[in-house]
Amino acid sequence: MPAPKLFHFEKNFEILSFQVDPEGKLRWSALGNLFQEIAWQHADSGNFGQNLFDLGFHWVLSRFHIEVQKLPHWGEVIRMKTAARGIDSLFALREFEMTSLSAEVLARGMSSWLLLDSKSKRPKRPNQFLPGDLFPEVAKGTLLPAKLPVPTETSHTKLFTVQPSDLDMNNHVNNVTYIRWIEDYSHAFGLAFSRLEINFLAEAILHQDVEVTAQNSEAGWILVGRVNNAPIFLARTSG
Amino acid sequence: MPAPKLFHFEKNFEILSFQVDPEGKLRWSALGNLFQEIAWQHADSGNFGQNLFDLGFHWVLSRFHIEVQKLPHWGEVIRMKTAARGIDSLFALREFEMTSLSAEVLARGMSSWLLLDSKSKRPKRPNQFLPGDLFPEVAKGTLLPAKLPVPTETSHTKLFTVQPSDLDMNNHVNNVTYIRWIEDYSHAFGLAFSRLEINFLAEAILHQDVEVTAQNSEAGWILVGRVNNAPIFLARTSG
Repeated sequence: MPAPKLFHFEKNFEILSFQVDPEGKLRWSALGNLFQEIAWQHADSGNFGQNLFDLGFHWVLSRFHIEVQKLPHWGEVIRMKTAARGIDSLFALREFEMTSLSAEVLARGMSSWLLLDSKSKRPKRPNQFLPGDLFPEVAKGTLLPAKLPVPTETSHTKLFTVQPSDLDMNNHVNNVTYIRWIEDYSHAFGLAFSRLEINFLAEAILHQDVEVTAQNSEAGWILVGRVNNAPIFLARTSG
Repeated sequence: MPAPKLFHFEKNFEILSFQVDPEGKLRWSALGNLFQEIAWQHADSGNFGQNLFDLGFHWVLSRFHIEVQKLPHWGEVIRMKTAARGIDSLFALREFEMTSLSAEVLARGMSSWLLLDSKSKRPKRPNQFLPGDLFPEVAKGTLLPAKLPVPTETSHTKLFTVQPSDLDMNNHVNNVTYIRWIEDYSHAFGLAFSRLEINFLAEAILHQDVEVTAQNSEAGWILVGRVNNAPIFLARTSG
């Protein structure tokens, strides 16, 4: 990821007991929740959140690249920042940064989103709906998180079942559920990481079983989550 | 539950996107998280939280009785209150209340806790360690949440697996995980409720399978969660 420019929106959060792991450090899933929260609040403040939903469209996270320098601990107050970073073809780009109150960078993220017609499920060109000053066209591929390869020879299989608590306000499995699966999967097999890339490929449905399996490579572990043998997400963990 | 007296400790929280269900209302599990958070903060402020842990003891939730009048929605700011309510034999009692900022009662809870020696896992008499003004002896059974019956003929079986994300700072399956299982279980079978009673009987271990099943009765649904056929929790949902 290139060095971030100015951020458009920020808000402080206290790290609470239910957001931390047994070592008292912020969980990756809780980091994902804070990214999601600040994106919602920013979109709403700029009139391209709830009101686009009311017009019959919804945002779907397509790819996410997260790098953690240092996870904050229980009781710490951190600052979440986000900014629109323009449009690359059908993708709207959003960058995130989490810092300490003394401006130390704790984590960064770059995400790409598709704007879907809620009925047809087809993507719409986001530049028809978004403020052009926040979302100018950017050079193709410069900021877009990587497209990941499908792993060929995998091992370490683990099963997850979609629960009602995994559904968000769109009644879809929330993107953070995928991050939690990756975190739980990696913990179960002792695979620590500080960099996470995800490609969201297809929707999972309530009560479906998701089989996660992985392949080790020079660039890290490549994970694939499958429902009825069809990939629904790819991820790469490293660092 | 009797009418609450004064509360010792309170704090406001904003309901965030990751705490709500598809209808935008606070989830029961997220309510449980806020109860847990305010209990921690109160115990720490009174020097019977982290410092008891450092002395080799830890609090274990034994029984919980929660009644919801109205669940707050995404973006609402609510006030969480808690107070110690004395000691009943080996149980330390703690009451909770969630109100709107205009003091409308949204939910209430009464909980009983055991103080365990972290090595021997045996309960200690809490009056040896707690401030007597906050924890006087109370008349036996007046505030203690009910002991629930083990259901005899059950149906509606559903399986949950303990994940790394279910562990809290004691490296134990957090009590809120049980609430989330009950919420997911009830949602899966269309069993809505506004009153929840839980008895926590035994610990679940990472990667264990927990089989939840239930029996309908005049007093509501009685749920039991079992690991290897041994009950680890009982719950009653009604209202």
